[in-house]
Amino acid sequence: MVTYPVEYKGRWNELFSNGNKKLRLEIGCGKGAFITTLARKNPDINYIAIEKVPDVLVMALEKAFNAKIPNLKFINCDAAHLNDYFNCGEVDLIYLNFSDPWPKNRNLKRRLSHKNFLEMYKEILRPEGAVFLKTDNSLLFEFSLNEFSDFGCRLKNITFDLHNSGYAGNIMTEYEKRFCDEGKPIYRCEAYFI
Amino acid sequence: MVTYPVEYKGRWNELFSNGNKKLRLEIGCGKGAFITTLARKNPDINYIAIEKVPDVLVMALEKAFNAKIPNLKFINCDAAHLNDYFNCGEVDLIYLNFSDPWPKNRNLKRRLSHKNFLEMYKEILRPEGAVFLKTDNSLLFEFSLNEFSDFGCRLKNITFDLHNSGYAGNIMTEYEKRFCDEGKPIYRCEAYFI
Repeated sequence: MVTYPVEYKGRWNELFSNGNKKLRLEIGCGKGAFITTLARKNPDINYIAIEKVPDVLVMALEKAFNAKIPNLKFINCDAAHLNDYFNCGEVDLIYLNFSDPWPKNRNLKRRLSHKNFLEMYKEILRPEGAVFLKTDNSLLFEFSLNEFSDFGCRLKNITFDLHNSGYAGNIMTEYEKRFCDEGKPIYRCEAYFI
Repeated sequence: MVTYPVEYKGRWNELFSNGNKKLRLEIGCGKGAFITTLARKNPDINYIAIEKVPDVLVMALEKAFNAKIPNLKFINCDAAHLNDYFNCGEVDLIYLNFSDPWPKNRNLKRRLSHKNFLEMYKEILRPEGAVFLKTDNSLLFEFSLNEFSDFGCRLKNITFDLHNSGYAGNIMTEYEKRFCDEGKPIYRCEAYFI
C-alpha cells in the first residue's frame, strides 16, 4: 500500500520500476478479486487500486500480498482527490465496478459517474483514455450513460446483460459472482474521452 | 395519402402549402395514434407518416381523415427507400416508435436503427437533426444505443423507464398504451446527428 500517494503524482511508473508504460486504476476495488486477477493477467501494465473503506481494503491487500503481484499498488483514499495523486494524462484506463448507486436524488453528486467526477477523470486520463463501467443497478447505468454522453464521451460496447453478451475476457468482482449466481443481469459500457 | 412520393422529393413543404418550415417523419406509424396526436398538437410543423403494411395504414388514414389534420400526410412505402423520397437535409426529426426488433441475428440489417439506416437518416436529416426512439424491447434498445454511438451520434435523454422518468409531453402509441397497462417499462433515447 502507498501511504502518501501525493508523493508519486506524475511518476507512478517510476515507483513500480518495471519499465511498464501503462497505468490503470480501479476506483473502489472492494476486496480486490477483480484487480488482483487483472494485474496477474497483464504483467506489462501497472495498476493502482483505490478503496476508501479500510476494513475492505485490508482484505484486498491480503489477496495481493499472498499472490505477490509486483505491478499492483493500493491507495486508501477517496476518489474526490484523484487529481492530487495523478498528473494530467498519467492514466490510461479507469475501472468503475459496482460503484455505490447512491439512489437518492440529493446524493447524485456522489455517484462516481457524475459529471464532476468525469471532469476529474478527463484531467488524469490520456487523450482517448476510457472509463469501463460495470453495475447491476439499472438506475446507475441509465444515469451513467447520460452523464458520459452529455460530457461528450464516445460510448462503446454497451450491454444490458454482460454474461450473455459474448464479451470475452470478463473478470468478475466479488459482487458480480453473487449477482451472477442469482441470475441478475450485469450492465456494462465503455466511455472514451475524446 | 401521397401515392407518388418521389414527385415531392425536395419540396414536401410546398405540397402542404401552409408556410411551415419543419418536416418530421414517423417511420412505421402503425395505426397512427402517435402521429395524429402529435400533428394536431403542433400545427406549425409538417409531418409525414410512413407505413409499409397497407392494412394498418388504412386505420391511420381513417383517424387522420376524421380528425382533418392539414399538416400530416401518409406514405405507404418501405423505409429502405427513404432517400428516393426526401432530399439531403429536408427532414428535421425522425421518430422510431416500437419498431420491429427483428430478434434473430440474421435479420440485424432489418432493424431500423441498423447503421445502414442511420446512413440514410443522416443523408435526409438537416445538420443536428435527430432520431427519437421508443421501444419496449431491451435487446433492440441496447442494439440501438450501440449503433447510434458507433455512428458518432450524440445520445441524449436516455431512459430505461419513460413513464417514470419525469419526461414531459410524451404521446403514447397504441402499443405503448398496452405495455403501459401491463406495467412494462418503455425505453427511450434521442440520437443527434452531428
